[in-house]
Amino acid sequence: MCVPEYGPVLVSGRFDPGEKARIRAAAAGAPVEFVERPGERPDLLASATVVAGTLSGEELAAASAVRWVHSWAAGVNADLAGGMGGHPATLTSSAGNGAIPLAEHAMMLMLMLNRDAARWARSQADRRWERFEHGELNGLTCGIIGLGRSGLDLAAKAAAFHMRVVGVRRRTDRPSPGVDAVFAPQDLHRMLGESDFVVVTAPDTPATEHLIGEAEFRAMKGSAFLVVVSRGGIVDDRALLRALSEGWIAGAGLDAHAEEPLPEASPFWDLPNVVVTPHNGATTAATRRRGVDIFVDNLERHVQGRPLANVVDKSAGY
Amino acid sequence: MCVPEYGPVLVSGRFDPGEKARIRAAAAGAPVEFVERPGERPDLLASATVVAGTLSGEELAAASAVRWVHSWAAGVNADLAGGMGGHPATLTSSAGNGAIPLAEHAMMLMLMLNRDAARWARSQADRRWERFEHGELNGLTCGIIGLGRSGLDLAAKAAAFHMRVVGVRRRTDRPSPGVDAVFAPQDLHRMLGESDFVVVTAPDTPATEHLIGEAEFRAMKGSAFLVVVSRGGIVDDRALLRALSEGWIAGAGLDAHAEEPLPEASPFWDLPNVVVTPHNGATTAATRRRGVDIFVDNLERHVQGRPLANVVDKSAGY
Repeated sequence: MCVPEYGPVLVSGRFDPGEKARIRAAAAGAPVEFVERPGERPDLLASATVVAGTLSGEELAAASAVRWVHSWAAGVNADLAGGMGGHPATLTSSAGNGAIPLAEHAMMLMLMLNRDAARWARSQADRRWERFEHGELNGLTCGIIGLGRSGLDLAAKAAAFHMRVVGVRRRTDRPSPGVDAVFAPQDLHRMLGESDFVVVTAPDTPATEHLIGEAEFRAMKGSAFLVVVSRGGIVDDRALLRALSEGWIAGAGLDAHAEEPLPEASPFWDLPNVVVTPHNGATTAATRRRGVDIFVDNLERHVQGRPLANVVDKSAGY
Repeated sequence: MCVPEYGPVLVSGRFDPGEKARIRAAAAGAPVEFVERPGERPDLLASATVVAGTLSGEELAAASAVRWVHSWAAGVNADLAGGMGGHPATLTSSAGNGAIPLAEHAMMLMLMLNRDAARWARSQADRRWERFEHGELNGLTCGIIGLGRSGLDLAAKAAAFHMRVVGVRRRTDRPSPGVDAVFAPQDLHRMLGESDFVVVTAPDTPATEHLIGEAEFRAMKGSAFLVVVSRGGIVDDRALLRALSEGWIAGAGLDAHAEEPLPEASPFWDLPNVVVTPHNGATTAATRRRGVDIFVDNLERHVQGRPLANVVDKSAGY
């Protein structure tokens, strides 16, 4: 085992004693310091060679010894915006920690929109027995933007709902099991035109910023729903508001939003054809546990001099 | 082709012109009469050899020539209670017409309960960004009571959610694809004790009436949820109310109810851990279409002298 010389491993966040013990064990004797925020102890930040947490530009500038930064987030757009994009240190992400619950959330939103579950909730609140005809997902087409871990898990779920599954991804050469047709980004509009549900699971990168704007909503079926579970910046909110208010599309399920927290004055809260959740789709105890697992595994790799997992391609943005 | 001699085929319900044309075509020249209710035209009822619809005891007594009754319902408890149980005529059901959307509804209720979707709905109504930690279905155990068409479709869906799937069925000798462990009815309590979700998809028969009572709720985990999508009579509502109010179980999703419509005064409407829907899980255009398909296929079989599909085993009750 090759233990490189280094300063402290600075781990930011809140951890229970069991988690701290696991992280310390993974460090194999190297000093580990726990803080709530990375900038809380400037002395540690200045000497740390490993930092777990998202650094602001100022914090990153102060972290003069850092060689590896691990983000607790699955999507690292905030880390890259904080300066990691142009920094020589390696950046790893927690991608995969919440992929499965995110796909669960997407399926829940799809079912609630397809069946108008909000109408049942209103009836229940009024103690009113009101039956109505609704849709079924069976036979519809699910179009997934981004066939990463959550997108592919969603594909398998949608297939079990007897849906046709199509998707768009940058790396069309990679396998996309369970997806009936994979489209390249330049064929996005074709995929949109075929889809009854368009689900955004892609990371927020320069290539996906405002990927879904007016032209894309115009390319969707009028009966189609948009579901966003990854990042809000991928959708142009002004175009989305028009698409929803003017009936270009049937409705939306929005867990990720361009501005978070969604402001109280946002019109999305009370559009009748929108289900809003507060970027909360993957907030489970298991997501947290998997996040710690990913860092612990990587810390062992680092200490042992093995290649890190989940290394971010900074030019791709994920 | 052997066309038996018979009186009119009496078809009750509401049908559009295309559906009527399909039914007439299937009758291959035999007279078809459409009515909204079977008792509406006593002359036709008295001479009909085939009736599609659910007959009351009085109507059945008046249908002196009937040899085959087809129910538009998937579960035929009302038909059997109306006298078909002791009648020599063949009874066929529409079983399978709503199996898939019923499984979709069960999954939606499971997701909404596991994630406390009602809490998000309240926050949305109040324009409040309130994040909280919730569960994920991944890794939990789904226990299905009744492995018929909807139960087996639900099993495949639950497996795609990375759940362990267990089930109880009367005919354990039949294949149950996608089910990790099949229990016989006498082992119900063992299955209940293992399940995080208990989903009732069984028909209402003498064997399942009040199958889930106090002892069964006591056998469930305190963290478990009950979901009922087939028939309400299978659950003892008094025991369910205690189980929900006193925290023997975590909550319930109830589409089928012992008394329907659920009375305005029912306590189930406003229990905080209950999602109520109005026996509405399979009410889709496709369910209706599949129901017509089943009858059209059977009418062709009848006219051609071939064995009917979906024949009810009257002693089993489905």
